[in-house]
Amino acid sequence: MKLIYTGKTKDVYELEDGNYLLKFKDDCTGENGVFDPGANSVGLTICGVGKAGLRLTKFFFEKLRAQGIPTHYIDANIDEATMTVKPATVFGQGLEVICRYRAVGSFLRRYGKYVEEGQPLDAFVEVTLKDDGRGDPPIIDDALDMLGILTLQEYQVLKDLTKQIGAVVKEELAKKGLELYDIKFEFGRIGEDGQIALIDEISGGNMRAYKNGVCAEPLELEQLMLEE
Amino acid sequence: MKLIYTGKTKDVYELEDGNYLLKFKDDCTGENGVFDPGANSVGLTICGVGKAGLRLTKFFFEKLRAQGIPTHYIDANIDEATMTVKPATVFGQGLEVICRYRAVGSFLRRYGKYVEEGQPLDAFVEVTLKDDGRGDPPIIDDALDMLGILTLQEYQVLKDLTKQIGAVVKEELAKKGLELYDIKFEFGRIGEDGQIALIDEISGGNMRAYKNGVCAEPLELEQLMLEE
Repeated sequence: MKLIYTGKTKDVYELEDGNYLLKFKDDCTGENGVFDPGANSVGLTICGVGKAGLRLTKFFFEKLRAQGIPTHYIDANIDEATMTVKPATVFGQGLEVICRYRAVGSFLRRYGKYVEEGQPLDAFVEVTLKDDGRGDPPIIDDALDMLGILTLQEYQVLKDLTKQIGAVVKEELAKKGLELYDIKFEFGRIGEDGQIALIDEISGGNMRAYKNGVCAEPLELEQLMLEE
Repeated sequence: MKLIYTGKTKDVYELEDGNYLLKFKDDCTGENGVFDPGANSVGLTICGVGKAGLRLTKFFFEKLRAQGIPTHYIDANIDEATMTVKPATVFGQGLEVICRYRAVGSFLRRYGKYVEEGQPLDAFVEVTLKDDGRGDPPIIDDALDMLGILTLQEYQVLKDLTKQIGAVVKEELAKKGLELYDIKFEFGRIGEDGQIALIDEISGGNMRAYKNGVCAEPLELEQLMLEE
């Protein structure tokens, strides 16, 4: 197998059969040793975070598969910290799709004139460009369409899928006493027909979830979610 | 008459009959003495810029009136540098609506991964919140709707009006050999039925227009537009 991409939190290999293998690493995004799912740099390395993230990803991707929601997931090997996935092409040079249930993070920084910190938001979906150098700028549907990244119809599919997947995650977290504040997803096109599907991962590093008013660290979140 | 608001480029008075009087000042936005319609601070004061801006505003608002496009305009007194307008309420605490024909300014700073400087854009419309402290953040229709600033239907009206008005300005500029790159508008609700109408002004300070590849300063633009 061939290494084709080295990411901040995982590496990607191409397999002989054309599928991809994702190798989860023990790095997470943040600044100065403090976890921040919205940050663009690797801020800390936590032993075991890769496998814990993969276990949670496997948990959610299998839930989504059972509900018929399209993802790139094939299977996972926890011991090896690897996940086998279908090859996918991303939109443009990559998008992040955020679903927000409470006003925190960059939403609060932008719209603090109109919202209080922590104010409930009704599964609000927004898209940002993956562009570290420009701070992952938010972008509207008309701009995505004009720049040839995504059509207006595809934007609607993305938005609907995001709300569906966000609802699944939110419900599972609630079962463990965790409240989901926001979560970010990546999507791509898979298969011959280019179906829009969830790609990447769903782990503690992609979301802000609170327990008793305190934001859970990724590893803590994964432990809470996966304990029997 | 009573002073009710002191703005960066004009003051607003309430008249006895309930209408408002706008007094144009000789200040324009920019930084370090360089004009920038996207800036939030008064960067320079140019003698005569107030009256020149009013003359151009009068020119455009009368063109729009002739075409049946709703504005707050009643009439203007160039000698006094004043414009009488209908009272209007703004959306939320104020929005700016931008129409872009070429990729420059904040659009280029945000989406430079996908566009070249000066690349043509097809009358692209986007909305920003008036919020100096937060750098006038762009905002999507779903967020405007969720935050109670504007409904999705009103957003569509705003977008359509912006394209219509932008086209009028672009055409008039072209007659004088100027190419409109981008322009920003403000809208409000006027009259008993709360009709959405253009408010504020249309002057050199609201737009970037180029002549022979060089961006025209506000006063130069107004002189070029209004010379016989």
